Amino acid sequence: MGTPDEHIHPVATGRAAETVKQHQEPQDLVFYAGWFCPYVQRSWIALEEKGIPYQYKEVNPYKKEKHFLDINPKGLVPAIEYKGKALYESLILCELFEDAFPEYKPHILPDDPFDRAYVRLWTDHVAKQIVPAFMCTVMAQEPEKQKENLEDFYKALRTISEKVKGPYFLGEQFTLVDVALAPWVVRDYILAENRGYSREAAGQKWNEYAEKLESRESVLKTQSVSTLVGVHGSSS
Amino acid sequence: MGTPDEHIHPVATGRAAETVKQHQEPQDLVFYAGWFCPYVQRSWIALEEKGIPYQYKEVNPYKKEKHFLDINPKGLVPAIEYKGKALYESLILCELFEDAFPEYKPHILPDDPFDRAYVRLWTDHVAKQIVPAFMCTVMAQEPEKQKENLEDFYKALRTISEKVKGPYFLGEQFTLVDVALAPWVVRDYILAENRGYSREAAGQKWNEYAEKLESRESVLKTQSVSTLVGVHGSSS
Ligand SMILES: N[C@@H](CCC(=O)N[C@@H](CS)C(=O)NCC(=O)O)C(=O)O
Ligand SMILES: N[C@@H](CCC(=O)N[C@@H](CS)C(=O)NCC(=O)O)C(=O)O
Repeated sequence: MGTPDEHIHPVATGRAAETVKQHQEPQDLVFYAGWFCPYVQRSWIALEEKGIPYQYKEVNPYKKEKHFLDINPKGLVPAIEYKGKALYESLILCELFEDAFPEYKPHILPDDPFDRAYVRLWTDHVAKQIVPAFMCTVMAQEPEKQKENLEDFYKALRTISEKVKGPYFLGEQFTLVDVALAPWVVRDYILAENRGYSREAAGQKWNEYAEKLESRESVLKTQSVSTLVGVHGSSS
Repeated sequence: MGTPDEHIHPVATGRAAETVKQHQEPQDLVFYAGWFCPYVQRSWIALEEKGIPYQYKEVNPYKKEKHFLDINPKGLVPAIEYKGKALYESLILCELFEDAFPEYKPHILPDDPFDRAYVRLWTDHVAKQIVPAFMCTVMAQEPEKQKENLEDFYKALRTISEKVKGPYFLGEQFTLVDVALAPWVVRDYILAENRGYSREAAGQKWNEYAEKLESRESVLKTQSVSTLVGVHGSSS
């Protein structure tokens, strides 16, 4: 057995497998993805929301093959190649899709400059508060630490819940805040099964919002049957 | 003596004082600032670059006055108020100025979508690698830790230096990467005086780039005589 990360299931399953199949043809935009990765899912959701043509390429980022490292020297998925240019970082890719393909809709950033800034501010809350608290809760070994981290997670969820206009964060428009958050919502069963988390405990508002996010078509289309390994970083 | 943070020098000095004086008239855009704060300086540089009309209001964020907490519940500067709306976070404000006042130039984000994403990626490097390494080097008490953090700082500087096209990060255009970084460059004498840092040790390319940043007019105009307390968080 090598490092466990080399042994993750090699391809997407379920609805995500169908989506992958529909995106095998060469396109100007090549999307380097790992089906299991929540960061990948963010950029993938954005692509699917907009219907931007792209070619899906599955890579195992833990193997670090030469061509992939040329695309992203950090060796992380998601990454893209577009007409000889390469880029990475899930949220920056979402903004790039918005900027580079304005004719593909819906937009995930509002037109109003202030609303855009507001969406960026709360996307930041997802990236700096919610996701780290989720990850720390999963990673923590000691029960005491697990409980503390779970409390931080609840706190971060309640903070954002207060601002949710419904059905989505900003109201009717599905925005970058929702895109950034949804991949962790669809993986929260990991916390439910292993850490005693429940959506209800985060409040009725959170519960409703989470249900809206997980049933969004672009989220369903980018989801494999088991997303467990994406958070553990390994299936074994 | 209360908490030392309440006793920072109350107002800007030097060139920054002149700039403050020119921005006392009421305007739609109110800029809540702390003259000593490197994050404030980022947004301030952006405002000065573009010549956007704004009213400067000095606040001591460590005092947390009621009106200020209404503007930014986190109680941090920089923050702004604009026609009844409030917002904060230095880099998000810079992007907001770009979006909300497109007619004020120069732009600090390139027009090309790919270049924009590239600028955001390296702004991220400044925010997640360079600034934390700077801060940790200042904060560290043990000489061993100080040395380690300083090494991280050098490493982060060399990484960005390799990408600098000169005179600025992206070439002739002064962009968000430069804006995000400049406030730490003008404060690097703190590391020089207390931690044995030298620009030369980070390489000739860094040295040249740093000089360009610190002599940019918008940087000079937003700088007080001593910026020391901004990094220590206190002058005493
Ligand atoms: N900040 C990055 C994180 C991406 C990331 O961590 N991806 C993981 C998979 S979920 C990866 O590629 N890991 C490979 C490695 O750590 O070597 C983003 O938002 O895109
Ligand atoms: N991430 C924030 C950081 C702002 C910040 O830390 N400002 C400091 C002054 S340099 C502050 O307001 N501190 C008050 C406090 O910590 O209570 C930004 O980029 O705007």
